[in-house]
Amino acid sequence: MTMSGFASSLTEITRLADEVRTQVHERDASGEYPVDIVERMRRLGVFGACAGDLRAYALAMEEIGRAWLSLVPIVNAHSSSVWVVKHHATDEQRARWLGPFLRGEELACLGLTEPGGGSDLANLGSTARRDGDGWVLDLHKTLITHADHADHMLVLARIADSTAVGSRALSLFLIDRDQWHVTRKLPKLGTVSVETCEVRAEQVRVGGDRLIGGVEGRGFPQVMDALEVGRIAVAAAAVGVARSALWRAIERVREREAFGAPLADNAIVRQRVAGMTTRIAAAKGLVQLSADRKNTGGRCDVETAAAKTVATDAALHAALTAMELGGGMGYTEEFDFARHLRDAALFLAGEGANSLLESLIGARMVAAEPDLAWV
Amino acid sequence: MTMSGFASSLTEITRLADEVRTQVHERDASGEYPVDIVERMRRLGVFGACAGDLRAYALAMEEIGRAWLSLVPIVNAHSSSVWVVKHHATDEQRARWLGPFLRGEELACLGLTEPGGGSDLANLGSTARRDGDGWVLDLHKTLITHADHADHMLVLARIADSTAVGSRALSLFLIDRDQWHVTRKLPKLGTVSVETCEVRAEQVRVGGDRLIGGVEGRGFPQVMDALEVGRIAVAAAAVGVARSALWRAIERVREREAFGAPLADNAIVRQRVAGMTTRIAAAKGLVQLSADRKNTGGRCDVETAAAKTVATDAALHAALTAMELGGGMGYTEEFDFARHLRDAALFLAGEGANSLLESLIGARMVAAEPDLAWV
Amino acid sequence: MTMSGFASSLTEITRLADEVRTQVHERDASGEYPVDIVERMRRLGVFGACAGDLRAYALAMEEIGRAWLSLVPIVNAHSSSVWVVKHHATDEQRARWLGPFLRGEELACLGLTEPGGGSDLANLGSTARRDGDGWVLDLHKTLITHADHADHMLVLARIADSTAVGSRALSLFLIDRDQWHVTRKLPKLGTVSVETCEVRAEQVRVGGDRLIGGVEGRGFPQVMDALEVGRIAVAAAAVGVARSALWRAIERVREREAFGAPLADNAIVRQRVAGMTTRIAAAKGLVQLSADRKNTGGRCDVETAAAKTVATDAALHAALTAMELGGGMGYTEEFDFARHLRDAALFLAGEGANSLLESLIGARMVAAEPDLAWV
Amino acid sequence: MTMSGFASSLTEITRLADEVRTQVHERDASGEYPVDIVERMRRLGVFGACAGDLRAYALAMEEIGRAWLSLVPIVNAHSSSVWVVKHHATDEQRARWLGPFLRGEELACLGLTEPGGGSDLANLGSTARRDGDGWVLDLHKTLITHADHADHMLVLARIADSTAVGSRALSLFLIDRDQWHVTRKLPKLGTVSVETCEVRAEQVRVGGDRLIGGVEGRGFPQVMDALEVGRIAVAAAAVGVARSALWRAIERVREREAFGAPLADNAIVRQRVAGMTTRIAAAKGLVQLSADRKNTGGRCDVETAAAKTVATDAALHAALTAMELGGGMGYTEEFDFARHLRDAALFLAGEGANSLLESLIGARMVAAEPDLAWV
Repeated sequence: MTMSGFASSLTEITRLADEVRTQVHERDASGEYPVDIVERMRRLGVFGACAGDLRAYALAMEEIGRAWLSLVPIVNAHSSSVWVVKHHATDEQRARWLGPFLRGEELACLGLTEPGGGSDLANLGSTARRDGDGWVLDLHKTLITHADHADHMLVLARIADSTAVGSRALSLFLIDRDQWHVTRKLPKLGTVSVETCEVRAEQVRVGGDRLIGGVEGRGFPQVMDALEVGRIAVAAAAVGVARSALWRAIERVREREAFGAPLADNAIVRQRVAGMTTRIAAAKGLVQLSADRKNTGGRCDVETAAAKTVATDAALHAALTAMELGGGMGYTEEFDFARHLRDAALFLAGEGANSLLESLIGARMVAAEPDLAWV
Repeated sequence: MTMSGFASSLTEITRLADEVRTQVHERDASGEYPVDIVERMRRLGVFGACAGDLRAYALAMEEIGRAWLSLVPIVNAHSSSVWVVKHHATDEQRARWLGPFLRGEELACLGLTEPGGGSDLANLGSTARRDGDGWVLDLHKTLITHADHADHMLVLARIADSTAVGSRALSLFLIDRDQWHVTRKLPKLGTVSVETCEVRAEQVRVGGDRLIGGVEGRGFPQVMDALEVGRIAVAAAAVGVARSALWRAIERVREREAFGAPLADNAIVRQRVAGMTTRIAAAKGLVQLSADRKNTGGRCDVETAAAKTVATDAALHAALTAMELGGGMGYTEEFDFARHLRDAALFLAGEGANSLLESLIGARMVAAEPDLAWV
Repeated sequence: MTMSGFASSLTEITRLADEVRTQVHERDASGEYPVDIVERMRRLGVFGACAGDLRAYALAMEEIGRAWLSLVPIVNAHSSSVWVVKHHATDEQRARWLGPFLRGEELACLGLTEPGGGSDLANLGSTARRDGDGWVLDLHKTLITHADHADHMLVLARIADSTAVGSRALSLFLIDRDQWHVTRKLPKLGTVSVETCEVRAEQVRVGGDRLIGGVEGRGFPQVMDALEVGRIAVAAAAVGVARSALWRAIERVREREAFGAPLADNAIVRQRVAGMTTRIAAAKGLVQLSADRKNTGGRCDVETAAAKTVATDAALHAALTAMELGGGMGYTEEFDFARHLRDAALFLAGEGANSLLESLIGARMVAAEPDLAWV
Repeated sequence: MTMSGFASSLTEITRLADEVRTQVHERDASGEYPVDIVERMRRLGVFGACAGDLRAYALAMEEIGRAWLSLVPIVNAHSSSVWVVKHHATDEQRARWLGPFLRGEELACLGLTEPGGGSDLANLGSTARRDGDGWVLDLHKTLITHADHADHMLVLARIADSTAVGSRALSLFLIDRDQWHVTRKLPKLGTVSVETCEVRAEQVRVGGDRLIGGVEGRGFPQVMDALEVGRIAVAAAAVGVARSALWRAIERVREREAFGAPLADNAIVRQRVAGMTTRIAAAKGLVQLSADRKNTGGRCDVETAAAKTVATDAALHAALTAMELGGGMGYTEEFDFARHLRDAALFLAGEGANSLLESLIGARMVAAEPDLAWV
């Protein structure tokens, strides 16, 4: 599919989102994995979208987040592999994987976090030991999204016996679904229709062609690059959740009456709506700005980190405000307000805790390097 | 029990709270009603505490909220009846009800909200029709907390055929558990161990001695007065939830390591902790200030509304920040962070939506009446 | 000058801004009108820039605001006239005025507000009475920026004896500098190098060709359209002020030492810097988004109002945070922190009070019209 | 004067505050030192008030801050000396100084900050060299409030040739007005009627009885203790400024008309007023809570730091919101809004920068010591 093909499919993605929104309340309550919607996203080119214009990709993720946040990690985890294969793989790897990944024929998830590890990737304990022309992997990962339904996993591991230290001893490997087992599914507050897992792979042998880029020790910058795109996706999805909450709240205040008039006529209700709107609009503007900058290549950590924190805050603000406007019934699971709040909380710590991202932004800004003169 | 007896039991309430906190994770997951804790609160004098110093009552509610927010509506609903009976009932009613209510031997809940009604009490549709020396009630209420386990319900109803208009035609009646039936229990986001119900009472006859105060049309000011105490309780409980979230977060950042040191050593983590602390402290200060003013009697709508909005905001801020500090695992139901967020959301709309309370505060302030010169 | 000419001059505007920043501390202290800089802005095409791509115009205003906020109202007031003449004037008017206005050879200011009036334009009292083929104007305006140095003023007046009511009786007229007198210059908190005036014009006769568009009663929508562009300019300038404050703060924390290290090494200082950065980035993203939408024509009141409120908040936040980071000396007038705060406060009420804009946004959103489905 | 005498004079202080508020606009514009008001505060017992109930002291400082913030540093600087003499001086020192200090017959200021130093007191460079039975001081201090009008200064200096390191080598000395000279008065953004100075004392000899407490190396904890009281005073004064801004805003929105009604009838205006009110009330509650805890003695750094940050934020929020409600004219110096903003900015960095205080609070909380279990 060409990118102009994708551009045209944005309208169709919006249509899909609108349709999903009519079913999401019941489907989310069931907690079942959305096989059919994944198939439709595949046909619409969603899984390869991050290889094109990132502004369009962000708009697509926004629509998907607006529809149902459980769908977002499925796409986002896969997009990381698309990005890494496109930008950091060897020619052979690209020839083998990029096509099916772009078309979504094979879906990958991303194995970074380890028990006790959190955002501190540089100190992880999973290992890869060279063994002839291949590698033997020992992996223990947790908080891995989509790890049961995905066909592949891109895993970060430490090269055993490497002379390099810290993050310079890390590499990315692409492994297959039969090479890891899911030891536990974590019971989450929200995004309940996509699994988040603890996984293990013990003494698993992979060929040398599974080391991304073919050279040891490049895993950390490869991941950092992909995570910038991940933050754009997450930020866009957060805008989508916020928009969903906003419009559900508007529906509700147009219907509910108090003191003889629709709540929508109340000036403070309107001010609440305005508050949600301005934050959403700002987050959306920043997501587009950061996608635009990442389009031009190079390091965009400040831009994407800023987008992620702003959009996450907007999503939580919208979820809380919508619940307030939902009234007493808004606290029940009979409306979407509870789901919005449960879902929006996902990215407080996910995809880089906001406190870590603020730390990153602050450190880069006080260094006063010229690439940030746009701020 | 004397008030000094209650003062001494604050230490015991704190001890109970600390004990409940060791069990709350499992008990809340079960969703079962806490019969044993209700009994222990009864023995500690919690159910009559609002009849004494409201600052001590607030501290007690804070501890109970810190322990388990599901306990709070049980006490709060009952306290409304204590307050109304103490301050607005006839001598005969006081003689009959105040003792068992203070001792918590008989527990009451509060029936105000109606389907479609929300915070707009003045337009409710439940009716009381005079019938000889008694009344026939037709009630349809919703969002009634503790309506299955309570022994009595204090209900607000419109006097049928009254010449008075709006809120001046409302009266409070005290009815018994066998006089209403629970038609539905609402599935809530949080506070899952206490029931919230839709209830009906059809053509129920009560004696004339069940009209609070013995005079028609006084229900609305009676409720408004009790709701001020309710807001103090809710605000105090919100401080308690926030404190619970704060200390769980502190525990977790002392345990978790990242980048070779406990998270508690990270300056931005500490700043987050400081942010929670200052908001909690401010909310606590305001709750005490508003309780102190309500102690002296008279209208304290601005004070208690301010306390409720500030404390609710602090609770939600604390719940969200704690979840962020909890890291990826903080989003699961394996820690208390999810429960804190689900519980803290209760009071966004409950006990007066914050937008309504802001409206009330603003209207009172621009009127520039002298009783608010303390601000 | 062509628009591509303007695009290329953005680099030169940035250079001018950097140069002005080296002088601004002393020049602002003098309070003198910046004749030389106005001339240089004229040569760089700044005064006609709003007729081209509004995103480029916004970036130019951002740079000018970053340099010295006193310069912004000079350009912004004029741009309103450019916009109105370009989009709402008769062909003859456009032929006469557009060229010199685009080139900045003749500068106009904007006369809307009246004593007691504020943002409520629909009820203004200045009048225009038909007199043969011309008009006799009676004007009393206040808070008119640049009213002493401008060559012309675009004034809003009520058609005397009109059968139309409210805002439908308003028209815009273009008058000349010798037709009004400045009765008072208002002592402002900030932006002290551009005058803000009370003005009067009594029984001033103008020709029929001075009625913008040639038809009575169109003044209000003409102004509303121009104010959307004004809000983009103001929002962009607010981003500029915020950026100026941010970088001054970064300079200072790199220089100041405390506890044996530069303040820039302190994690909470960095977090403050990150907080400024993310708000600025979000405001900038939203300004660009709103400019992009206004580029396509049509009503953009929500977009531009959102941009104005977000950017103003970001500017005040940045000014306050920078002053905090400036330390005790940051409170003196020896650094730029005080000026940033005094200047940033300008737009709290100017160009539409934020409370009014929130009201507008809320009203539009709850109406749920399709043009706002992008939110 | 007894404390009950002071308690009764709170009413008189309120009366004085109300009177000062009728003159403050003109007096502040003149920038003249308020000799007469200082005399009246002396007679009302303000200068000794911190030796009594700190809640009453806080209420007094709140009233004085409400009247005119320039008055506050005069009292606050002196109160530090009262506190230090009362709690940390030798019996002889207390006998000599406490009486005249309590009565305000002799006023002291506080000399801590040094050029380049800011809040980092432990590394200061002013020295005290033992010389027979006395000391020779070399001092260079800046940002010293009231340093021209005060009779004495309590200065922090490093003991020359001390074997102690860091803050353990610091001592407090009390010196007289003829022993230092003012080298510069700093031009401040606000609080313009009290001087803030750079001062020097070169080779000044003082007697051994001027070393507070008579033992070397105790200056730092003495200062830390006094600064807790200083933060209570500053926080209380910030509440006062916020209240002043709130009520000026209420006056203005009651007078101004827009859209055919007083602005006070507008729901969003009321919501703004409510926002100011709740923050002020919370800050006031926390100030009282922290004063109450400091009354009982011991370390109250978290409590007072929290009060200071919350109250400062409330003051700046109130000042900005009031200016917004003031409309376009609110930006001029013709109303009090500009002064409120200029004054409220004082404490952003003063009396401990908020970022430093957050750091302190965070560090103490994560240590999880039992004295903070009240949070």
